[in-house]
Amino acid sequence: MSSYWSKYPEIENQIQDVCQIIEERAHVRNTEIQDAIVQLTQAGGKYLRPAFFFLFTNFGQNREEKSEQLTKIAASLEILHMATLIHDDVIDDSPLRRGQKTIQTSFGKDVAVYTGDFLFTVFFELILETMQNSPFMTVNAKAMKKILVGELDQMQLYFNQDQSIRDYLRSISGKTAELFRLASKEGAYFGGASPEVVSRAGRIGYNIGMTFQILDDILDYTAKPKDFNKPVLEDITNGVYSLPLLFALKENPTAFKELLDKKDKLSPEELTHISKLVVVNHGVEKAQELARKYTQKAMDDIQKLPKIKTQKQLMQLTNHLLKRKI
Amino acid sequence: MSSYWSKYPEIENQIQDVCQIIEERAHVRNTEIQDAIVQLTQAGGKYLRPAFFFLFTNFGQNREEKSEQLTKIAASLEILHMATLIHDDVIDDSPLRRGQKTIQTSFGKDVAVYTGDFLFTVFFELILETMQNSPFMTVNAKAMKKILVGELDQMQLYFNQDQSIRDYLRSISGKTAELFRLASKEGAYFGGASPEVVSRAGRIGYNIGMTFQILDDILDYTAKPKDFNKPVLEDITNGVYSLPLLFALKENPTAFKELLDKKDKLSPEELTHISKLVVVNHGVEKAQELARKYTQKAMDDIQKLPKIKTQKQLMQLTNHLLKRKI
Repeated sequence: MSSYWSKYPEIENQIQDVCQIIEERAHVRNTEIQDAIVQLTQAGGKYLRPAFFFLFTNFGQNREEKSEQLTKIAASLEILHMATLIHDDVIDDSPLRRGQKTIQTSFGKDVAVYTGDFLFTVFFELILETMQNSPFMTVNAKAMKKILVGELDQMQLYFNQDQSIRDYLRSISGKTAELFRLASKEGAYFGGASPEVVSRAGRIGYNIGMTFQILDDILDYTAKPKDFNKPVLEDITNGVYSLPLLFALKENPTAFKELLDKKDKLSPEELTHISKLVVVNHGVEKAQELARKYTQKAMDDIQKLPKIKTQKQLMQLTNHLLKRKI
Repeated sequence: MSSYWSKYPEIENQIQDVCQIIEERAHVRNTEIQDAIVQLTQAGGKYLRPAFFFLFTNFGQNREEKSEQLTKIAASLEILHMATLIHDDVIDDSPLRRGQKTIQTSFGKDVAVYTGDFLFTVFFELILETMQNSPFMTVNAKAMKKILVGELDQMQLYFNQDQSIRDYLRSISGKTAELFRLASKEGAYFGGASPEVVSRAGRIGYNIGMTFQILDDILDYTAKPKDFNKPVLEDITNGVYSLPLLFALKENPTAFKELLDKKDKLSPEELTHISKLVVVNHGVEKAQELARKYTQKAMDDIQKLPKIKTQKQLMQLTNHLLKRKI
């Protein structure tokens, strides 16, 4: 775990419990898989989904009584996230994730595919252990499907210069925002919050998720490689055109056409040139503006939450998260 | 669907319903994925798992009343099987499956990984739709995990000349027999059979699954490429040493050492030579003997089933299946 939560000792402890569950569940005869999972657990992820889950549990009264169940649900969220990350890296052939070698690079494609699959089964198992007879079992199955469909939508759009902003938003809504929504909503529900808070939590999670992904995509164009733990602009050569590029493309399609027609054959110099063109054509600026709109929606809902200590923390965290540079 | 069930019109109809459910559930915006799933559905698989499921439903009284639920459960079994097949092909880089190009070959690695993942979510969804509040939800989660662990065990043994027969059996018990057990047991349970028949069905499925996999592995050494819809001896270069080779290795390790030490660098001529060595050193013979033992166990249990028409069909089918040449 990274030091991201050091100012929030309660969350830090809860996340440590989550890591312990993940490592316990990763206990299989195949030591490579086990090592692969432990490596990813310790690679400095921010555990945002379990953290939002735990924060929203504070709006109910179940915290103490159901602590074991809650930790397992939090773990299920991170495990589902890890499974999709691992398979994304197989598809992208990414060499790095969180500044460390990906599972595929360290252990090979076979370990990466099966480790992802294995984590899907652990996710399934944890859901069954914790939410039998609750409507959230179906909510989880639907969320998992939306996440996959988001990935599929993104794949459908590879190298497509005519895709709309709406296409992009639909794809990130599935592949990223859905899991933030699930985490927040589930936190409120299993913590024992009122139905009103449960739906508000879902909206907050969703809007934070949308902003988070947009900012992640903006970082591709603004971060220096050494600050950012993954190869910058890898997305473009993989055919994934994110929001800043799409906004710039709308403003000045001819500036990009010849370059983007080269698809995955772009040189590092051409990628840097595209990156500059995106900034000059207001791509980053407009993406930041849209991110601010989603943040504002999240903030409006956070302000309407019950006035407990967690409400303030959520504001701080959302502000902090959304100002991220790396 | 192949013509495998043409002599059993009832099963043939039931499998057609299963195919329809699979194609309905494969309906996603991403046309590549949809095509990939439809291609696999129509590629001439034998649908053995749904077939055994349906056969065992006949030992209860629920057939008519619960027909929709039963078809969905049968579909879940085939979908789980398809998901693992697709990911296996990604790992093996297999060019062919059921005599046709694999999804990876036709559509690329990204489509193959995500199609498998998507099918896992459909599996999850079908389980939740059909067996909420039944103990079989957990049985399914456990089965899915065992299947994955079987694959992981196999991976752990890649290129290992010292692995035991027991290692091999444990691996195929997970990766193949478990799903046959689940199919048969679930068929009896959801069909409404007695607890005694449900456990007997599980044992029968397991023993048929073990035999089925052993015979599949024997075919690698006895079938001609044109009869057998996948590249023969591909397993060896992938590091998977199956039962005939392991028996021959035990009998005469020195005959194989130098060749197997070449791992994935074996020439087609060397592979043919290994194949002959396996036969000469009684590998095929001993594997056939072990397959017969598993068949006998299955037959003993089938004979103790209630004497309805399906009992006879099960005997015929088991005999037929276990005499397969392709």
